[in-house]
Amino acid sequence: MSSENLLSPAEARELFRGGRRVPTSGYSHGFAQANLLCLPRDLAFDFLLFAQRNPKSCPVLDVTEPGEVSASVFDGDLRTDLPAYRVYRDGKYVEERADVTDLWREDLVSFLIGCSFTFETPLLEAGVPVRHIEAGTNVAMYETNRACRPAGRFSGPLVVSMRPVPADRVADAVRITSRYPAVHGAPVHVGDPSALGIADLSRPDYGDPVEVREGEIPVFWACGVTPQAAVMASAPEFAIGHAPGHMAITDVRDSTYQVP
Amino acid sequence: MSSENLLSPAEARELFRGGRRVPTSGYSHGFAQANLLCLPRDLAFDFLLFAQRNPKSCPVLDVTEPGEVSASVFDGDLRTDLPAYRVYRDGKYVEERADVTDLWREDLVSFLIGCSFTFETPLLEAGVPVRHIEAGTNVAMYETNRACRPAGRFSGPLVVSMRPVPADRVADAVRITSRYPAVHGAPVHVGDPSALGIADLSRPDYGDPVEVREGEIPVFWACGVTPQAAVMASAPEFAIGHAPGHMAITDVRDSTYQVP
Repeated sequence: MSSENLLSPAEARELFRGGRRVPTSGYSHGFAQANLLCLPRDLAFDFLLFAQRNPKSCPVLDVTEPGEVSASVFDGDLRTDLPAYRVYRDGKYVEERADVTDLWREDLVSFLIGCSFTFETPLLEAGVPVRHIEAGTNVAMYETNRACRPAGRFSGPLVVSMRPVPADRVADAVRITSRYPAVHGAPVHVGDPSALGIADLSRPDYGDPVEVREGEIPVFWACGVTPQAAVMASAPEFAIGHAPGHMAITDVRDSTYQVP
Repeated sequence: MSSENLLSPAEARELFRGGRRVPTSGYSHGFAQANLLCLPRDLAFDFLLFAQRNPKSCPVLDVTEPGEVSASVFDGDLRTDLPAYRVYRDGKYVEERADVTDLWREDLVSFLIGCSFTFETPLLEAGVPVRHIEAGTNVAMYETNRACRPAGRFSGPLVVSMRPVPADRVADAVRITSRYPAVHGAPVHVGDPSALGIADLSRPDYGDPVEVREGEIPVFWACGVTPQAAVMASAPEFAIGHAPGHMAITDVRDSTYQVP
């Protein structure tokens, strides 16, 4: 592990604003990370309702006023301070870029949605290994065959992140992550990727593959890329998301989102 | 305690549909109860955002499509199956009635919001007394001097419910209710009503007063009447709510809303 984990959220955001373009897993230990989705105001109710109906994958941490570029949980600039963004037009992913200032619109409402990177600190502190941090890669993410509950103009599949966990630590991983419902909480699935419609773990839909070693079980958590899968399935005229794994580092301590 | 606690949700709703007009505390033990707020569709985003920003007082259990009269958590008729309703025009409380069928509009979106009556069963099972159930009265509710975080056209004060708890059981009451964040969770305040701006416990703003006995501490939970206080403070053109304490009995087990 390198020194990224010691950066304050403001320091990490400054690095990303300056052009560092890396996945944020392992950055700013102890602070919550967030998924981003920016949508025109006239789609905001439908999406907020979609999030309310799919709380495991879309736990809402904050919603901005239209046009605002900072948030109560994020004292930075949402247009520049994430390492990378994805832009969608009519539901098509058209480009990935480091800055979206020139695409910004005064009618954009930004949703910050909990990210499972947040509970990786407590996992590591409990001695549960997190392979993609060890390997210095992005987390592996997969679209599943499970449909989200639709709302208005939004529908789409559940997306999951996967971490391989030694069989004797699966119970600990469940116990620890279930204390953080605002950042996806307990796993949605343990083992048996085929039951989720995942044919080949070595070919994730987003992020990088990770090795699943002998004696390890693939454990699946609901993932905040689900909103972007819904954008691709539902084709709103315009949307901006974070690039998967390249998150907003918030100013909120992860312990804030812990339940008893 | 009488036999109301043994009624199924469908049986309780049938009684209320037939005209029984009583507070629902103690009804259908083991099933969650919900606050109701029905608003025109053009106010729905602002209110859903208000709820997202004030999750202790406004935990959203379900939101209907416009005009729908049942909900995924409530297999009944929202216009008739609560014991009593309150009607608001331009933010003014204009009448309380047993049925709102003739006031229904196709653009009304109904919000079902968690109710602290839900965690009274686990409190009773743990031997923590619930005075208003013993007394057969409505719970005592108070407007406080704490402002909710505004959203769009909605702002207003936090409303709390109060239960007197013996000093040696306050910790148990906190511990038990904190496991139910979807139905208001842990108390927002323990003792010292004056710090919440409550001058006289014997004069609640909603519901009935209850005796606070020697050795008991008044314990305050965020209350789902907060949305109706926001309606009165924010003056939307039309709104329907439940009459305070006269809740929607849902088909969902209270254990569904329990966190570890």
